[in-house]
Amino acid sequence: MKATVITIGDEILIGQIVDTNSAFIAKSLDKIGVEMHEIISISDNKQHILDTFEKLQNKVDLVVITGGLGPTKDDITKKTFCDYFDDELVVNEEVLTHVTQLIEGFYKRQITQLNKDQALVPSKCTVLHNQVGTAPGMWMKKENTVFISLPGVPFEMKYLVENQIISKIVTEYNRPYIIHKTVLTYGIGESLLAETIENWENNLPDFIKLAYLPSPGRVRLRLSACGSDKEFLEKSIFENVTSLSKILGDSIVGFDDEETLEIVVGQLLTKQNKTISTAESCTGGKIAQILTSVSGASKYFKGSIVSYATETKISVLGLSEDLIHKHSVVSAEVVREMAVNIQKLMKTDYAIATTGNAGPSKGDSDAEVGTVFIALATPNEVLIEEFNFGQPRDKVIDRAAVKSLEMLRKEILKNL
Amino acid sequence: MKATVITIGDEILIGQIVDTNSAFIAKSLDKIGVEMHEIISISDNKQHILDTFEKLQNKVDLVVITGGLGPTKDDITKKTFCDYFDDELVVNEEVLTHVTQLIEGFYKRQITQLNKDQALVPSKCTVLHNQVGTAPGMWMKKENTVFISLPGVPFEMKYLVENQIISKIVTEYNRPYIIHKTVLTYGIGESLLAETIENWENNLPDFIKLAYLPSPGRVRLRLSACGSDKEFLEKSIFENVTSLSKILGDSIVGFDDEETLEIVVGQLLTKQNKTISTAESCTGGKIAQILTSVSGASKYFKGSIVSYATETKISVLGLSEDLIHKHSVVSAEVVREMAVNIQKLMKTDYAIATTGNAGPSKGDSDAEVGTVFIALATPNEVLIEEFNFGQPRDKVIDRAAVKSLEMLRKEILKNL
Repeated sequence: MKATVITIGDEILIGQIVDTNSAFIAKSLDKIGVEMHEIISISDNKQHILDTFEKLQNKVDLVVITGGLGPTKDDITKKTFCDYFDDELVVNEEVLTHVTQLIEGFYKRQITQLNKDQALVPSKCTVLHNQVGTAPGMWMKKENTVFISLPGVPFEMKYLVENQIISKIVTEYNRPYIIHKTVLTYGIGESLLAETIENWENNLPDFIKLAYLPSPGRVRLRLSACGSDKEFLEKSIFENVTSLSKILGDSIVGFDDEETLEIVVGQLLTKQNKTISTAESCTGGKIAQILTSVSGASKYFKGSIVSYATETKISVLGLSEDLIHKHSVVSAEVVREMAVNIQKLMKTDYAIATTGNAGPSKGDSDAEVGTVFIALATPNEVLIEEFNFGQPRDKVIDRAAVKSLEMLRKEILKNL
Repeated sequence: MKATVITIGDEILIGQIVDTNSAFIAKSLDKIGVEMHEIISISDNKQHILDTFEKLQNKVDLVVITGGLGPTKDDITKKTFCDYFDDELVVNEEVLTHVTQLIEGFYKRQITQLNKDQALVPSKCTVLHNQVGTAPGMWMKKENTVFISLPGVPFEMKYLVENQIISKIVTEYNRPYIIHKTVLTYGIGESLLAETIENWENNLPDFIKLAYLPSPGRVRLRLSACGSDKEFLEKSIFENVTSLSKILGDSIVGFDDEETLEIVVGQLLTKQNKTISTAESCTGGKIAQILTSVSGASKYFKGSIVSYATETKISVLGLSEDLIHKHSVVSAEVVREMAVNIQKLMKTDYAIATTGNAGPSKGDSDAEVGTVFIALATPNEVLIEEFNFGQPRDKVIDRAAVKSLEMLRKEILKNL
């Protein structure tokens, strides 16, 4: 089964935004064994869209289009669908009810004609209901090709792909089995990881493909087995992941795309009935924000003091002014006291503290740009590590936040 | 002058990496008035590449290809060029000298045959020398179309675009002027915005195009003027942006891609010599994290207490237990006291507080999923607003954070 993704929008063609939608759709389709033929970005031009549809007609099984579904005049996908399928727009009552509820119920605004027009869809299409926005998705078939239209707003597009499209394709089409297993590793760089598992990788059977998916501080390894015998594929993946686990040990954090570090840490804390707090300087609330991005975090996360200014470290977090003057605000001594104080203040089992200079220029201390001290207070001791995460600023903040959660996870595992 | 960008590589087609090269190339070409026809991603397959070249031959003036130039066997762009241009690979001595210097002089490694092969280029091509890597760029013309091949490594590609390609195009081709202006608006949804400026939009001259670029809580409006008289275009853009500003007033936050809400708020606070702190519950540190994502935030941001647990609200932020029991933790009364207390604790001019239920399920209070109370304490008063941002969880957190900064900005402007 072959697919092409089309993203529509001048903002992509002039380079104003990076197209991340295509990668998400490509990844989602790849997981269920749909082969990606091309990814194409074109402008908001009806004739260009129609020409592209013509070229793909009966050449691929699936065309997924994002963008051009908003309420404004430059959004022309729906009208183009009507032209291509010789159809006309009709009001879909279910969508209209949903849009009305969203605008009047949630947003407490008067509904406008443009809002109402969101409920117009081609009469022959199957509506893909969008619970998180006003623009519905559309599914239409012509001869051997299915055309799916999705809104360009990333979280709406994702919602429809995850909740409607993937299951519909899986139900309605035969594809070879593709079994994926993702192994989430933290703390080993991509090159070193590749060298560490070189022998294991060379011994993988031909039908298992390995992909390295690196992001700051972590590398996901994805094994994909493709074939017709599902049980055999699953057994092979299981055996190879088991042998990989023996090599990588506790650098492996989880085994699924959904098992992020913050989710795993949350599960460990919940299971152990332990709590955590943070005192953040250079990370500016990022660790708290990552921890609270997980629903149910209130079970184990009590709170954070983002003590960005030195005076806040003294007046709110209760650090000693002498200590700061003696050792400077970016130091092992200060980060230790930050962790100990927040642990006491919030009465938690664990506490994380950070202080450093995220850059781009030097700040309140003489510390090199990129320097970060992380402290982890456990029920028994305080661990301190010093890092230099280089530049740019957002990378330093990200790496420091991820590293602190990685330290926390290893320590909880040690105390199990 | 029309261009198409082709990115070659399976890693893009399976969604393993997001293609950021195309956006960079598109933006660079747009700046010098080259119109982007399409951006296409295809796999490392020779026939597919040749078919794509055929389709673009004489249809566009410029085809820019990235990827497929590395030393490993799946990199096939050079051989495909030879096929397409009926040419053969020859050693380019200048490139060979550079590669040898880089490998032996800089990396201190023995040069391999694979390294030397990087100096092989089609005999008819103009070599674009790559000072920051081993793979040279290539420029070849067939009939009316120029084909440019660039390495896929982003900083090597950028080096060649910035240092070789743009100047070559500017010197050798006549192009129209394209003037862009982006207007950043907050707080008006896309539909309402479109209706508000409908008359203005209808009166735009034909040579000015308008695009809506929405993201949660904000919409960027982009005006693009194309023509041969640069001064006239600039004047028209200026006039139309001025009339738009009169309609939208203080909903306009900034006028360039780089002017985000957090940067504008930071500039306002710095200029007024005012400070800010936050007390966050449902936003979990997100507001602090956004404020501190701006370098130099220490001038105005003193810190935050993320009081996630109810007990932290009482013990650290000093809320009255009675107040919480009487009104519930998600209430106007509680958010008001959070803002007032953090303003006092951190001794800041302004303070933002949030409490709510980000979902997906009900929490410590009876508040509907998506409900958020935001309080803004100013030097004179406390403003409180209630919202329902719907679902999913990350959208609620994002919208609440953005909305609070928007309230802050309007309030500072009012007190100027």
